[in-house]
Amino acid sequence: MATDIQVINWQDASAAERSAALARPVQAVSARLQAQVRDIIDRVASQGDQALLDYTAQFDGVRLASPVLPMATVAALAEQASPAVQRAIDQAYNNIRQFHLAQQPQNVQVETMPGIVCEQRFQPLERVGLYIPGGSASLPSTVLMLGIPAQIANCQERILISPPSAGGQLSPAICYAAIKCGITQVCLGGGAQAIAALALGTESITKVDKIFGPGNSYVTEAKQQVSQIAGGPAIDMPAGPSEILVIADDSAEPAFVAADLLSQAEHGPDSQVILLSPSRTLIEQVKVELSEQLAALPRQSIAQQALSASALILTRDLTEAVAISQAYAPEHLLLQFDDTDSYLPKLTNAGSIFVGHYTPESGGDYATGTNHVLPTYGFARNYSSLGLLDFYRRYTVQTVSAQGLQDLGQTLIDLAAEEQLDAHLRAVSLRLESPRMQADLAAEQLSQESRS
Amino acid sequence: MATDIQVINWQDASAAERSAALARPVQAVSARLQAQVRDIIDRVASQGDQALLDYTAQFDGVRLASPVLPMATVAALAEQASPAVQRAIDQAYNNIRQFHLAQQPQNVQVETMPGIVCEQRFQPLERVGLYIPGGSASLPSTVLMLGIPAQIANCQERILISPPSAGGQLSPAICYAAIKCGITQVCLGGGAQAIAALALGTESITKVDKIFGPGNSYVTEAKQQVSQIAGGPAIDMPAGPSEILVIADDSAEPAFVAADLLSQAEHGPDSQVILLSPSRTLIEQVKVELSEQLAALPRQSIAQQALSASALILTRDLTEAVAISQAYAPEHLLLQFDDTDSYLPKLTNAGSIFVGHYTPESGGDYATGTNHVLPTYGFARNYSSLGLLDFYRRYTVQTVSAQGLQDLGQTLIDLAAEEQLDAHLRAVSLRLESPRMQADLAAEQLSQESRS
Repeated sequence: MATDIQVINWQDASAAERSAALARPVQAVSARLQAQVRDIIDRVASQGDQALLDYTAQFDGVRLASPVLPMATVAALAEQASPAVQRAIDQAYNNIRQFHLAQQPQNVQVETMPGIVCEQRFQPLERVGLYIPGGSASLPSTVLMLGIPAQIANCQERILISPPSAGGQLSPAICYAAIKCGITQVCLGGGAQAIAALALGTESITKVDKIFGPGNSYVTEAKQQVSQIAGGPAIDMPAGPSEILVIADDSAEPAFVAADLLSQAEHGPDSQVILLSPSRTLIEQVKVELSEQLAALPRQSIAQQALSASALILTRDLTEAVAISQAYAPEHLLLQFDDTDSYLPKLTNAGSIFVGHYTPESGGDYATGTNHVLPTYGFARNYSSLGLLDFYRRYTVQTVSAQGLQDLGQTLIDLAAEEQLDAHLRAVSLRLESPRMQADLAAEQLSQESRS
Repeated sequence: MATDIQVINWQDASAAERSAALARPVQAVSARLQAQVRDIIDRVASQGDQALLDYTAQFDGVRLASPVLPMATVAALAEQASPAVQRAIDQAYNNIRQFHLAQQPQNVQVETMPGIVCEQRFQPLERVGLYIPGGSASLPSTVLMLGIPAQIANCQERILISPPSAGGQLSPAICYAAIKCGITQVCLGGGAQAIAALALGTESITKVDKIFGPGNSYVTEAKQQVSQIAGGPAIDMPAGPSEILVIADDSAEPAFVAADLLSQAEHGPDSQVILLSPSRTLIEQVKVELSEQLAALPRQSIAQQALSASALILTRDLTEAVAISQAYAPEHLLLQFDDTDSYLPKLTNAGSIFVGHYTPESGGDYATGTNHVLPTYGFARNYSSLGLLDFYRRYTVQTVSAQGLQDLGQTLIDLAAEEQLDAHLRAVSLRLESPRMQADLAAEQLSQESRS
């Protein structure tokens, strides 16, 4: 099976060739798609459940009586998951839970001056919506990646929505994962209509504070649109096609490298896979392996399309490879060479890094413990990988005593005067000059003396 | 001076009256404004500095030679700040720095299974853009609120941009604050064109990873638009008009409450101020105080407009006031009653909470230590107050040994099979079956035995 993947010698490449090799596939959102999504959101806003059910009939081919799958049904379906799948989900759950438990935030309290106490408090989001894509296969791993941190944060309502199967249900594996994560409501629906239902609420689905999860171009566009609504939900991160970058040298196993590149390529025709290596031999061997392994894949035409937009790049050395990776900022970054300790501190622009010959991308996709919801499309430069913190919000609390205000007052007055905000100034001066504050100051000082 | 502020008895109010009393002013972004901002962004994209300088001449009335204010000029201007302003900025800086220093994140490392190590690492954003609004007065406090966390996080490039004064410079107070925060580049520009320059970069301004800071409707719309660009910058949070909610009872000082309400009302005609109190007497006294204090304010017409869209609400008791506040989710929440400890745990939906009679909003606006960049417009339900964490991104790292993969392999295979991702499965099975892995497994076991 031939692959069209290009081989580029970085030293010989022109600036234009270099930037073409690392260019991401253009994500054109057509005006037509935007308008379609806007219509869907509007209809869910005005007709609620009925609109969602109609769209489900239209797009998923199932006419449901209700968009809610009762928890008793979910529990019964979960029991139908095979013992192997149950065991796999159990082990993945344990690892993901351990790693996310360790991310628990700590409230902060500081007395910045005597009598002035400032606090930062973390509060779980009250209602979260978790979107699980449908399609040909069931995706229980995404249930775990979204459901476990929501469970640890203890978000009060954890609503899962996913397109129904032809039978109007969800797969036993999804249901088994949902039960493990203590999902509070399971809903049936997909695409823009599912996002609209979470964002706006319907008769049977609660409006949520934040929407998480990957999806197709309709889901992505709908998430963007609802996040712009005044008072609308937050969303986890901007989306883009999945991508992998492998840095490998002669110590790497060509078959491993090729397998990892293909595991990314099979995600979709717009997936991007890149190998950076100072070894011409390795690149040639990986190319041969790609052809051989591709022949055995069921999703080979998807992978082949992805490879044709990808590149195997010969670099001068590992240092140059590191610099290229930093500029590209991949979603998944695999390091398959021996001396990773020397290079890891310089590799910061990535969603998730997989270190060493025995850390395939599928490890993190499923079960090492890290989250597989990651910034892609270059957003690994400025967005975070999904983590426990994304299920909390932070707010601050401050308490100032009469003495604290006495000591800070002049600063507040001088800054308010500089900013010409007179009422800000007077809220301070009026207190400083009040008989009540003088009395309370005296009382505070007395109580402090009696304590010391 | 009469105020039009309405007094509402919550018990007597109909559902419609209740929701009208708490309705936020509608933020209609006109299609015309959206198109104007789009044009400005496009022109900065194509013409860079020249476009920025032309817009500055047009909107700020100053024809500059360069959008960069040299650091030597910034330093010289800083020295012209009055001793009082310098001292005030110094004290504010110390408090804000202390509180934000305490927010430093800790990397996480967990061995989820023998041979499987997962890490979460925090990395400062490399380049941040800090927008400081211009207008009638200089706003050094916003420089501190954005500049101090960027300095603590040690973001490599910390670029400040603010509309120039008539003389083509910035105020000594802003320059003094900028020097204290170690701003690396100070630029001149305002409105959508300043946001576009930060988002896209120009000949003299570096493209940034994230844009922070408040602004008018052009700035807000420009931030929204650039955050939608593929590979574009992140933004701090959605914006809306400022708002305050005070819960007070008979123990409160009416003059203090009125002064705090007015310090919010003077921000802008669309600011919203709400008092919730179980005390009819307090409400009447606050109303009288509002009229009296309003008469003395330079920004009285702005404050008067804001008050006319606001409300003093009589509640059954403090518990009802707490419930109303939770539903409203104010940006600033002031508690002026004695038993705050009993109610504070239930008050979680707010940007920042000000506890007790001596904690005016201006305290947190300037110098207690908390950040004054806060979610407003109901976003305090699902967005965080600005903090040190907003200047970092998180990414994960995982390292799996041969033994780790051996123990986790079946789980990965079973989940990949369930999700019908064959290449994911083969990236694991191919390793498990390889002679190399068998050899490395043996070597790992040997080394472990020799260690134990």
